[in-house]
Amino acid sequence: MRSYAVIGAGALGGFYGARLQQAGCEVHFLLHSDYDHVRQHGWVIESKDGDFTLPKVNVYRSARDLPACDVVIVALKATQNHLLPELLPARGAVLLLQNGLGGEELIAGIVGPDRVLGGLCFLCSNKVRPGHIRHLDYGLVSLGEFAQRGVSDRLRGIAADLNQAGIKTQLLDDLRVARWNKLVWNIPYNGLSVILNANTDVLMAQPDSRRLVELILREVVADAQACGVPVEDAIVPKMLEYTDKMTPYRTSMKIDFDAGRPMEVEAIFGNPLRAAQAAGVPSPLLETLYRQLAFLNRRTASA
Amino acid sequence: MRSYAVIGAGALGGFYGARLQQAGCEVHFLLHSDYDHVRQHGWVIESKDGDFTLPKVNVYRSARDLPACDVVIVALKATQNHLLPELLPARGAVLLLQNGLGGEELIAGIVGPDRVLGGLCFLCSNKVRPGHIRHLDYGLVSLGEFAQRGVSDRLRGIAADLNQAGIKTQLLDDLRVARWNKLVWNIPYNGLSVILNANTDVLMAQPDSRRLVELILREVVADAQACGVPVEDAIVPKMLEYTDKMTPYRTSMKIDFDAGRPMEVEAIFGNPLRAAQAAGVPSPLLETLYRQLAFLNRRTASA
Repeated sequence: MRSYAVIGAGALGGFYGARLQQAGCEVHFLLHSDYDHVRQHGWVIESKDGDFTLPKVNVYRSARDLPACDVVIVALKATQNHLLPELLPARGAVLLLQNGLGGEELIAGIVGPDRVLGGLCFLCSNKVRPGHIRHLDYGLVSLGEFAQRGVSDRLRGIAADLNQAGIKTQLLDDLRVARWNKLVWNIPYNGLSVILNANTDVLMAQPDSRRLVELILREVVADAQACGVPVEDAIVPKMLEYTDKMTPYRTSMKIDFDAGRPMEVEAIFGNPLRAAQAAGVPSPLLETLYRQLAFLNRRTASA
Repeated sequence: MRSYAVIGAGALGGFYGARLQQAGCEVHFLLHSDYDHVRQHGWVIESKDGDFTLPKVNVYRSARDLPACDVVIVALKATQNHLLPELLPARGAVLLLQNGLGGEELIAGIVGPDRVLGGLCFLCSNKVRPGHIRHLDYGLVSLGEFAQRGVSDRLRGIAADLNQAGIKTQLLDDLRVARWNKLVWNIPYNGLSVILNANTDVLMAQPDSRRLVELILREVVADAQACGVPVEDAIVPKMLEYTDKMTPYRTSMKIDFDAGRPMEVEAIFGNPLRAAQAAGVPSPLLETLYRQLAFLNRRTASA
């Protein structure tokens, strides 16, 4: 088993890190506001797969004190990525667990592309109080290499540790396809849920928002294709059908917005927009959502 | 002087109708909720150009009782246009004073195109209580024929009456150019003011909303041109400069939305969108605003 550092140990990083430690991995958590609490009391994990506690946890307040690890899991919100130059250690593979685009490129610029891995998490969990995480549903992690296609040995090793910890994994031949596939859903639903103050079921039921969702889905698929990422046209009806069948859902971006927290606007909207425009596609629907959300984010920041 | 019927005697129709009556025209007002009050107490007009009262006013509750008039002024909100088949009399020119597109076409379908005139009002007035209108600023009316270009004698006659009543007028060679010129401003500012909950100064000051305003301005100009209406590209920087210099302004659509009233979404967004798409221009920014506002309008209606 590998050793892990977890940078950004919130509802996502705390959950996966605690599970890896419970399964026997050496894990080191970099903590900010919850440092004192977790150092004294450890982790409490409530999970649909079984509750557990970890009374003794390796915690650090400063990245300089983190010991060298095989894998550095970055589980910050993308809005915190500007901190990464100060946080990333000199050694170890860096696995970015984050939504959106552009994070791996940023990390590659700091540590070099060969150390970079990316992952997408399908996880529903909340931090209910310091050191206490509630895992509600799902948990799958999709893992891919950043600088090359295909499944490497180190990816298989990380997946084995996660599986040992009871976490399902998927190994990706092409990380970019997975990132764009997730964007295809995130862009219309996260964006419109905030702008129209509506959950997924309302967006699907009202004809104007449903039409807009469909137009945005199509545009994002075309953006991916223009960027050379083979996302299939058939994903559009699939996403509509999938969302029609979903339990009514308040998107993560709307949860952040409603709580007055910054939204991941650059990762989920700005970077895909710039990628599409660099590929020669103007992407007016994506740009409209991007500008509207960036406006709202600035207002939150200045409030 | 001509005789006038006023259908929709609110802050706009009440103001112009009262001024025409004060100047000596025969004026007949079709009233709904304010019928009893105005019948008993007449009009009270507070105006930056001088206050006045009209204690005795010809008022009607039913369109069937309106006497034949030379000119029928329609000053309903566009959201009430579905009532027009019941309200328009069998004789007289019909002058539509309304924002947006499509109203003249609707009236032409009811009374025939030759009876139809259109006007745009640059007026800041409020109804402060039944029968009491406060005129804050401006007042210019631009007037044009619907079914032909050029200035007709009947347009000149109406303008003469309005001028006699102290109202400035402008006679239009091409009503469509004036309608689209006004849409160029109304579409970005009315739309974004509602969606982003912001006044004009904030929309201009924040870089993301300002960029979006500019993109929308350009798209609407292209839409007008695709519809064969010669709106000039130079209107884009002019509108930006004009709005930069404006006193911070809550748009009329935002005032309606904030008050829980229906917004004129079809007239200002839906009809221009359909016209542009019929001319082969997809207009994605306009469609996005249209769908977002139509969504909000439906939610208001169901609340």
